[in-house]
Amino acid sequence: MRIGLVSTMCTAVPPPRAGSVELVVGLLAAELTRRGHDVTVFAAGDSEPAGRLVSVLETGYQGNETIWDWQLAEFVQLGRAYEHADELDVISSHVYCYALPFSRLVRTPTVHTFHIGPTPDFVRFCRLYPEGKYLLISEFQRTLFADLPVAGVVPNGIETSAFPFTEQPGEYLAYIGAFHPNKGPLEAIRAAREAGVPIRLAGPDSEYFQQVIAPELDGSDVEFVGEVDHAGKVELLGNALALIFSSTWLEACPLVLLESMACGTPVLATVNGPVPEIVDPPVGGLCVDDAELVPALERIAGLDRRAVRALAVERFDVSRMVDGYLRVFEAAT
Amino acid sequence: MRIGLVSTMCTAVPPPRAGSVELVVGLLAAELTRRGHDVTVFAAGDSEPAGRLVSVLETGYQGNETIWDWQLAEFVQLGRAYEHADELDVISSHVYCYALPFSRLVRTPTVHTFHIGPTPDFVRFCRLYPEGKYLLISEFQRTLFADLPVAGVVPNGIETSAFPFTEQPGEYLAYIGAFHPNKGPLEAIRAAREAGVPIRLAGPDSEYFQQVIAPELDGSDVEFVGEVDHAGKVELLGNALALIFSSTWLEACPLVLLESMACGTPVLATVNGPVPEIVDPPVGGLCVDDAELVPALERIAGLDRRAVRALAVERFDVSRMVDGYLRVFEAAT
Repeated sequence: MRIGLVSTMCTAVPPPRAGSVELVVGLLAAELTRRGHDVTVFAAGDSEPAGRLVSVLETGYQGNETIWDWQLAEFVQLGRAYEHADELDVISSHVYCYALPFSRLVRTPTVHTFHIGPTPDFVRFCRLYPEGKYLLISEFQRTLFADLPVAGVVPNGIETSAFPFTEQPGEYLAYIGAFHPNKGPLEAIRAAREAGVPIRLAGPDSEYFQQVIAPELDGSDVEFVGEVDHAGKVELLGNALALIFSSTWLEACPLVLLESMACGTPVLATVNGPVPEIVDPPVGGLCVDDAELVPALERIAGLDRRAVRALAVERFDVSRMVDGYLRVFEAAT
Repeated sequence: MRIGLVSTMCTAVPPPRAGSVELVVGLLAAELTRRGHDVTVFAAGDSEPAGRLVSVLETGYQGNETIWDWQLAEFVQLGRAYEHADELDVISSHVYCYALPFSRLVRTPTVHTFHIGPTPDFVRFCRLYPEGKYLLISEFQRTLFADLPVAGVVPNGIETSAFPFTEQPGEYLAYIGAFHPNKGPLEAIRAAREAGVPIRLAGPDSEYFQQVIAPELDGSDVEFVGEVDHAGKVELLGNALALIFSSTWLEACPLVLLESMACGTPVLATVNGPVPEIVDPPVGGLCVDDAELVPALERIAGLDRRAVRALAVERFDVSRMVDGYLRVFEAAT
C-alpha cells in the first residue's frame, strides 16, 4: 500500500527529544516500511524516517524563531502532501484535524488521527465532513466526539523491545513530563513526601520548573535528573517503584504510561480521561482520586511486574498499532 | 467571469463595524456584480454581500468564544471555496497567504491579495509557489516581498460617493482607529495639544483606551466621540481640519486615509510604509517625522481640499480598484 504519513512540523521524525506525535509517526513509518509498504513521510526537513521524506521546512518550528505562524506551516506541509495524493493510496494525517479542508479536493482517502482532543473546534469542523475517516487513539476520545462516526480506535504503540523488563521494583517514584502546573509535578512531589517515598523527576526546564519545582528539590528525596534521552528514560523508569502520573490536562494516550509499563513498572495515576483504559487497573497500575494517591502507593509494590510488562507488550507494541492502522486504511480505501 | 472572493472570517461581509478586509471584499463583490460578473463570496454566514454567499460558520469568529483556532476556521472556509473551484474562473483570496496550500490542487487559478504584510512567513511560503499570482495593495509591499513576482499592485478602494466633499475646513484634528499604542493615539493627542488644536478621537473601547487615553480626555480640546458608524465617520472626517495618522504599525493601505481624502480632508501623517504613496504629499496631505507634526499642522490648512478630494476619487474609488482586480484576474486566467 502507498501510504502518506503527515506529521506535525514541531520537530523532526523521529524527534530528537520530546515529541509524541513525531515519535508515533516515526514508529508507523518504520514498521509499515518493514512490512513492505511504500511510505512517504511529510515532516520537518531534518527528519530521518523510514521511507521517503518530503518537507517544506528545513527544521521543525519548535525553537525556530523565524516561524511565527506555526499553523500556516502545518497547512503548507499538508498542501504539499495533497499535491502527492495521486501517488498515494491513503493519506494518514496526524496534524490535528487540519487535513479536513483538503480531503475533498483529491480522490485519495484521508484518515485523520487525533493526537489531542477532539476539541470543540475539531467537532464543529468534522461535522462538515461526515464522510471523514476519524481514527481515535483512545475509547475515551469517543465521549468528546459527540455523534460523529469513528473509523477505528487504535491506541498509540511503542517499541516495547526498546524498554527492557526490570523484575525488581525500585524504591522511588518516577515523574517524566513537562513541568507545567497541569501536568501535576507539584502534586506528585507532595504525594511522594507524604508517603515517605523518594521521587525523581525528569523533563525539560521551564519557567514553572524554576519558579515552583526547583525550590522543592532537596537532591535526595526529591531529585531532578534533567531531561532524559532514551537510555536515561529506560534507566529511570525501569528502576522505579512506580511512575506517578497526575496530569489534569486532557490527555489522549500518553506514551510515558506505555513506556513505564513496558519496563514492568506500574503506573500510579490520578483519574484522567483515557488513563484507566490504558492502565487497566489493577493490572498495569492504579488509578485513584488525588486524595487516594498516598494509600494507593502502599498497594503498588504488590503488583505483578511481569503482568504489567505483558499488558504493554500485548496491547501497546508498535506491531499492534500498525495492525490497527492498516485495518482502518484498508477499510478507507 | 465567475469569480470566487474568499474573505477573512473575522466578521461579516460587509462588516457591521470595523473590518477592512471584509469591507474591501464587500465592495469588490458589489461592483463586480454590478458589472455583470458572477460572484461567489466565501465569508461568515451572517454576511450580506452582493452575489452568492457560501459559508462554513454562522458568524465571524470575532467575539465568538466557541472558536478557539481562528486559523483553522479560515482554512476550512478556504477548503470549502476550493471545493467550488470547478464552478469558478478565478479564486481571489483575501485571507493572508493561506490559499497557497490549496492553489495547486485545482485547475482554477488563485490570486492572493495581501491585506497585511507580506510578513516573513508569507515570503518564506510564497517562495514555494513561484507560479503564484500575488496582488499587493501598495508599492511599499514590494519592498517586503523580496524578489518574488508580483501580479499587480491594486490599492484599496472605497465608495467615494458615500463620503461627500466638505469644502470648508474644520478646526479640529480627527483620529479614527484602534486604541493601541502602535496606532499612535497618544502621539496624536500630544501633537494636537502642542499645536493648540482640538482633537476628536473615535474608535472602539479597549484596555489601552481606558488606561492611557481616557485620562487625557477633557471633553473639549481632547474629546472622545465613541465608535462611529458610517454617518458618524463622514461627519467626523468631513468637518475636520485634517485626519491625524501616526501609526507605527506596518500598514498596507489604510482605508481611513482614503475616506478622509474623499471628504476633502487632508491627512497629516507620520512617515509609515505605504502612507506617502497614498497621500501623495502635498496633494492629499503631509507626511512628516514625529517631531515635525506640529509645524506641519500649520501648513495643512493651506492645502486645496478640492485637490484632496480629486486625488481620492481618481485613485481610490472602488471602480479603480475593480478595474485593477479585473486586469489581474484576466492575466491570471
